Amino acid sequence: MKTVQVSLGDRSYEILIEAGLLNQVGELLEHRGTHPRIFMISNSHVFQLYGEDLGRQLSDQGYQVDSVLIPDGEQHKHLKTVEQIYTDLISQLADRSSTVIALGGGVTGDIAGFAAATLFRGIPYIQIPTTLLAQVDSAVGGKTGVNHPLGKNMIGAFYQPDLVCIDTDTLSSLPAREFQSGLYEVVKYGLICDPEFFSFFETHLKDIHSQIPSVLEEVVCRCCEIKAQITSQDEKENDVRRILNFGHTFGHALEAVTQYQRFTHGEAIAWGMLVETHLSRLQGLLDASTGDRIMQTIHRIGKLPPLDNISVESLLEAMKRDKKHQGEKIIFVLLEAIGSTVITGDVEEHLLTEAWKLIC
Amino acid sequence: MKTVQVSLGDRSYEILIEAGLLNQVGELLEHRGTHPRIFMISNSHVFQLYGEDLGRQLSDQGYQVDSVLIPDGEQHKHLKTVEQIYTDLISQLADRSSTVIALGGGVTGDIAGFAAATLFRGIPYIQIPTTLLAQVDSAVGGKTGVNHPLGKNMIGAFYQPDLVCIDTDTLSSLPAREFQSGLYEVVKYGLICDPEFFSFFETHLKDIHSQIPSVLEEVVCRCCEIKAQITSQDEKENDVRRILNFGHTFGHALEAVTQYQRFTHGEAIAWGMLVETHLSRLQGLLDASTGDRIMQTIHRIGKLPPLDNISVESLLEAMKRDKKHQGEKIIFVLLEAIGSTVITGDVEEHLLTEAWKLIC
Repeated sequence: MKTVQVSLGDRSYEILIEAGLLNQVGELLEHRGTHPRIFMISNSHVFQLYGEDLGRQLSDQGYQVDSVLIPDGEQHKHLKTVEQIYTDLISQLADRSSTVIALGGGVTGDIAGFAAATLFRGIPYIQIPTTLLAQVDSAVGGKTGVNHPLGKNMIGAFYQPDLVCIDTDTLSSLPAREFQSGLYEVVKYGLICDPEFFSFFETHLKDIHSQIPSVLEEVVCRCCEIKAQITSQDEKENDVRRILNFGHTFGHALEAVTQYQRFTHGEAIAWGMLVETHLSRLQGLLDASTGDRIMQTIHRIGKLPPLDNISVESLLEAMKRDKKHQGEKIIFVLLEAIGSTVITGDVEEHLLTEAWKLIC
Repeated sequence: MKTVQVSLGDRSYEILIEAGLLNQVGELLEHRGTHPRIFMISNSHVFQLYGEDLGRQLSDQGYQVDSVLIPDGEQHKHLKTVEQIYTDLISQLADRSSTVIALGGGVTGDIAGFAAATLFRGIPYIQIPTTLLAQVDSAVGGKTGVNHPLGKNMIGAFYQPDLVCIDTDTLSSLPAREFQSGLYEVVKYGLICDPEFFSFFETHLKDIHSQIPSVLEEVVCRCCEIKAQITSQDEKENDVRRILNFGHTFGHALEAVTQYQRFTHGEAIAWGMLVETHLSRLQGLLDASTGDRIMQTIHRIGKLPPLDNISVESLLEAMKRDKKHQGEKIIFVLLEAIGSTVITGDVEEHLLTEAWKLIC
């Protein structure tokens, strides 16, 4: 079993990574002295695949487990779903020592994490991410939250889990599009801080697509290590952590103007990274051949849904509303090399328009 | 100016207390380098009394201030009001460095604090409590949150303000009932940990009722000191902080079964302290004469609304649902002397019924 430590003082926790880890969760929790009352939050699809077995396993281990099924999809990631969880847990007499298990992808983890962060002013929770995107990104780092009609992830809390259990075997049940979407966040880690990992990714892309277990474990573990290291330095995204937002300024705006329905999060970030790579070149930060290499690798991951009927004006408006802008400035994470970023609020609007046109 | 320090590592902050302090807030914030964008959250009554002037003062000091008025009263302390704040602040382009000022009583502070805790995963906020209850209790200690249809303060976060400004002059505009309600929380501090302060309260009750400025400042400051000390030891109510809940187990249940409409929070806590003082005697913890002295002082503060048509069964049910129960047990803070508490989950139900009958 691979273990990654997230060091955050009294909020520190471990990420455990192994193919087949789901079968050991009951034992692991008992060993750690997890309180006997557990609420498993999942969606019906993931629950059928893994939740029923996990529930039985936990019951056999002596836990009292109730399940709360929530609808899946970014369009359900809003306060109403969180309220449903509050009502279910309170009705079933949850108390402050009850533990929430978030079993599913990023949407489930973000919603369940926010519910755990805010029910009774915070109860323990454990992340069991079952999508690649969640395993390498959203389940690690303590960001929880939901969307607001005016923007993505506007409502939330920094709230660290007690434990993250990653079973890479669950990735085999992912639709190809979901798996591919996760790979965009994987390649991002190489781009923002690890040129060696970027090269590894380039050369092993075929094995990754074939889901060779040892390669997958290595990829997921490296991503978690990077995210853990960044999070440990800057829990609340004041500074270092902002480099994780490469591709996200445009990406979030793309999701917002298409009502979170046309692109998966990973696909929006992929388009975002492509625009922001162009932007890095237009700003004179990145040389042309490196830019080409980056864009080629992103395109090699798979085909992206087209960008039809999206105006740059609507994107600019969405970016200005996004929580990452400071005052009137839109903040970008740009690249000056593979593995090296520059954070800037000084990008002229005509360059944004030009970069956008270059990818359209 | 009196200053009370709340020591919580990188979440430490100061409570400033002075008659007339409201006139200095602009200067104070400028001196502290508060970010120029401010959102003042208040209700229309308090806004008319103090908010308009404060807004002008802050504008004169160079701040860009917008106001968000929310409905007052415990019945509006729910997620819908928080959502209104989210929408207003996002629409007016708030960002992560914008500061929320909560101007008003406990309800305003709890709601505004929770909105600040969860908008963009947390933005800075400043408490300016204008009721006695808020000045001595809810504005200090970082508890924020709202009610759920199934119970009080079920949804929330521990989130510390950047600063608390207390102007005791604002108490002169309080309705007598509100002022009296605050006094019940004041006397609680003496009961749970400060026999000297309890004696001071007994002997100065007339001056307190007359709102003699120097006496008021001393009373508010002592309460803040006690609350700050307890909060510093136990930010998240795992341990020491629970003594603050003397009177609250019954008190919260009383509020819940009367839909938060019949009693003010302070009045419910007053009834709660009376029941729990009886309970302390019935449990053999407290001697009869001390119990009498306590109950006499609580009654001397003022007249309480009657307890008609409340069944002990409905109270028991509400207590079991409350977040302070652990597993199946209802947790009580009881007294063994003035200034000395015992926390117990071992109270037999027939004693609860008997204590309840004794006050009815």
